[in-house]
Amino acid sequence: MTPSEKAAALAGERESAILEQYAEILRIPSVSTLPEHRGDVRRMAEWLANELTRLGMTRVELFETPGHPIVYAEWLGAPGKPTVLVYGHYDVQPVDPVDEWDSGPFAAEVRGEHIYARGASDMKGQIFAQIKAMECLRDAGSAWPVNVKYLLEGEEEIGSLNLPAFMDAHRELLACDAVLNCDAGIHGPDAPAIVYALRGLAYFEIELRANGRDLHSGMFGGSVRNPIHVLAELIAGMHDEHGRVTLPGFYDKVRPLSDEERALLAEVPYNDGQWLAMTGGSALYGEEGFSTVERVGARPTLDVNGVWGGFTGEGAKTVLPARAWAKLSTRLVPDQKPEDIEAMLRAYVASRLPEGISWALTIHSLGPGAVMDRTSPFMRAAVAALKEVFGRDPLFKREGGSVPVVGLFQEKLGVDSIMLGFALPDDGIHGPNEKQHLPTLFRGIEAYIRYMALLGEM
Amino acid sequence: MTPSEKAAALAGERESAILEQYAEILRIPSVSTLPEHRGDVRRMAEWLANELTRLGMTRVELFETPGHPIVYAEWLGAPGKPTVLVYGHYDVQPVDPVDEWDSGPFAAEVRGEHIYARGASDMKGQIFAQIKAMECLRDAGSAWPVNVKYLLEGEEEIGSLNLPAFMDAHRELLACDAVLNCDAGIHGPDAPAIVYALRGLAYFEIELRANGRDLHSGMFGGSVRNPIHVLAELIAGMHDEHGRVTLPGFYDKVRPLSDEERALLAEVPYNDGQWLAMTGGSALYGEEGFSTVERVGARPTLDVNGVWGGFTGEGAKTVLPARAWAKLSTRLVPDQKPEDIEAMLRAYVASRLPEGISWALTIHSLGPGAVMDRTSPFMRAAVAALKEVFGRDPLFKREGGSVPVVGLFQEKLGVDSIMLGFALPDDGIHGPNEKQHLPTLFRGIEAYIRYMALLGEM
Repeated sequence: MTPSEKAAALAGERESAILEQYAEILRIPSVSTLPEHRGDVRRMAEWLANELTRLGMTRVELFETPGHPIVYAEWLGAPGKPTVLVYGHYDVQPVDPVDEWDSGPFAAEVRGEHIYARGASDMKGQIFAQIKAMECLRDAGSAWPVNVKYLLEGEEEIGSLNLPAFMDAHRELLACDAVLNCDAGIHGPDAPAIVYALRGLAYFEIELRANGRDLHSGMFGGSVRNPIHVLAELIAGMHDEHGRVTLPGFYDKVRPLSDEERALLAEVPYNDGQWLAMTGGSALYGEEGFSTVERVGARPTLDVNGVWGGFTGEGAKTVLPARAWAKLSTRLVPDQKPEDIEAMLRAYVASRLPEGISWALTIHSLGPGAVMDRTSPFMRAAVAALKEVFGRDPLFKREGGSVPVVGLFQEKLGVDSIMLGFALPDDGIHGPNEKQHLPTLFRGIEAYIRYMALLGEM
Repeated sequence: MTPSEKAAALAGERESAILEQYAEILRIPSVSTLPEHRGDVRRMAEWLANELTRLGMTRVELFETPGHPIVYAEWLGAPGKPTVLVYGHYDVQPVDPVDEWDSGPFAAEVRGEHIYARGASDMKGQIFAQIKAMECLRDAGSAWPVNVKYLLEGEEEIGSLNLPAFMDAHRELLACDAVLNCDAGIHGPDAPAIVYALRGLAYFEIELRANGRDLHSGMFGGSVRNPIHVLAELIAGMHDEHGRVTLPGFYDKVRPLSDEERALLAEVPYNDGQWLAMTGGSALYGEEGFSTVERVGARPTLDVNGVWGGFTGEGAKTVLPARAWAKLSTRLVPDQKPEDIEAMLRAYVASRLPEGISWALTIHSLGPGAVMDRTSPFMRAAVAALKEVFGRDPLFKREGGSVPVVGLFQEKLGVDSIMLGFALPDDGIHGPNEKQHLPTLFRGIEAYIRYMALLGEM
């Protein structure tokens, strides 16, 4: 048996212990956006630091930031070999609407082949699988084949606000040949895939103010602006009847899809029925002239992620509210700059608002998109590892989601990221009943084992 | 001194005791819409029942309903004289946004000439003033000049849901010659007014469902409907560029304003600057071709009172929500039937919603508008009472707000309501920092004293 075969066998033998430990970390509610979970986020960071120490990393450190801590670890015992930096995040999204969960969001209940918990798929499962792969390699008796660093942050779900400054301040510490970004997924249990392009994300919050105070809708209704009406007009105007975003200049820098790319994307195993089943809806909708795969992977989009204003409790209150709010975000394709989008949004709002409405824009994140080299040795090793485990070549995929850190690694450290993770499209990340498919998690451990081994052979 | 002069003098002597007792009831958070205040609502009902017993009512009863109790009381010691039914409500609106209050919503803090509390003006102050007037008349040594009944409900702010059935079941108990409805106001501390027309209110809640669950906006954004976008389009389409409501048929039954009415309304002491100052805004807006007084008093309006959907917490969550909601209400002028408005709204929504969106409509209230006879003896007595106290004739006024119970009394008991109350337009009812102007409250007590006395002379 090769070391990686031996390690893979070990992972199988330890299945129940691995599952137990996985459930343990899923029970830590490390919701980064909620102040009341601050202690839980730290607890998760400390768990990882302890685990990486046990694993045999020779330096493990918790770096404080103005927000949540960054976990750093390294083992540099393979001189002359490449250095891979493993990136992940240990924070999770909020759990609301909590009443739509079939089991507690942090109960880590196993039902059938899945484990249900916030963060199971995004992305505690992925980073945990990578660490378990390293552990099995170690216990299989061989030294690790490449140098390894870990950078695990606790603020990915809130825009990685403190990561850029950390990268600037620790450029040497983080120096590496490639990033293994585990915040990724495949197409299906038997459909390996590698994302080579990510959309950027610009996330905003807008507040409209019409009146100085909430008014009685009977007394004042019909004589002043209602900020909810104005906000509705703003939002309604952001798309045209062809499903296109109307912010002036929004598509100016969008590269047209080449025939080659369209052909590649057409190969993605996709059908409307399955996609619709995942949404739980009854109809698809999107920009005219593009397929669903193109819409979510290769075209920029704009979504209002939240809206609120006035009375939202039970029953009736005849209020004419003073203010109204929306959270909205755009997913960007390469060459679209988030800062340009901000300017377009400001221009759009300014040109549309009627007299008497003041407004404020808050920026939650501005992350560019990224496209990776599909032919680098690090990418080829990932392709080979997936093929060994899944028995077939992975598809190359453009991802609709955003991993702004990929752009950051390109910009700050000059390195590409290999997106290798084992989430599934129906895992329900960010929504209720997020889950991880357990057989896929174990295949992931094996794939990480083989990937690390293959890197040693480069 | 006449009995009413003597009673008015008594009210002046008792100012501090009256104020203390008023503050006591303002401290009871009788918010009818919130289940956690159920006990407080009942406490307020019991306070009134006790007070009416102390006052000398010969029958006092708390009638249970499926919701909050109805307080009934009567004194029928003036045979041959008219019977007046005093209507009021002892429930109050919710207090949110609570952080915009300068003192606790139930602290009943006195600052300058005002007392600040939820319900101070709408309408604990008004019903309290009427009861104090009765008490002073009693203590002035005269028997009450007319027969009196009280009907005080605890569900006005949630649509008086159980009142129609109560009226049907107790038609004889409630029989009267006129209703004195204290849920009313005047134009300013020196500007008495009587409302003779009220707008109706139809209040709805709409829920749009697009997807079966909340989705990740990166993964699914651009490929499915976002219910917030659809809701925004619905809301935006409800008004045209002339500020008119677009529900098909909305204005069909609206009576054009006669020249006489327009002339009457033009006399209302109003100016844009003052109105704007009350709103705290910087511009007025409304239906083209009508003055502000006409817009709020004589034209129907539609306002979205609340909107919500998706992530509304702090920070960012890249969710594509499954559902979105709005509360919306229309203020109706006479001849517009709330049931017709419901049908128009349903037709509007059905015709506008795209494929793949399902929806549900909840009805919170359907109350018609009302116009009262300006020449009845009960109305003339009110005019005279106000003139005695304020030294000038009251203006007749069409009210923008809705008091659906006025239509109910017309329909169920066949009697008109005299809207006599002492709220001021800047009292901030339904909003933060609701207050009552104390000198106006005491003038109100005097006006109620004189009104009751004048009814005895009819």
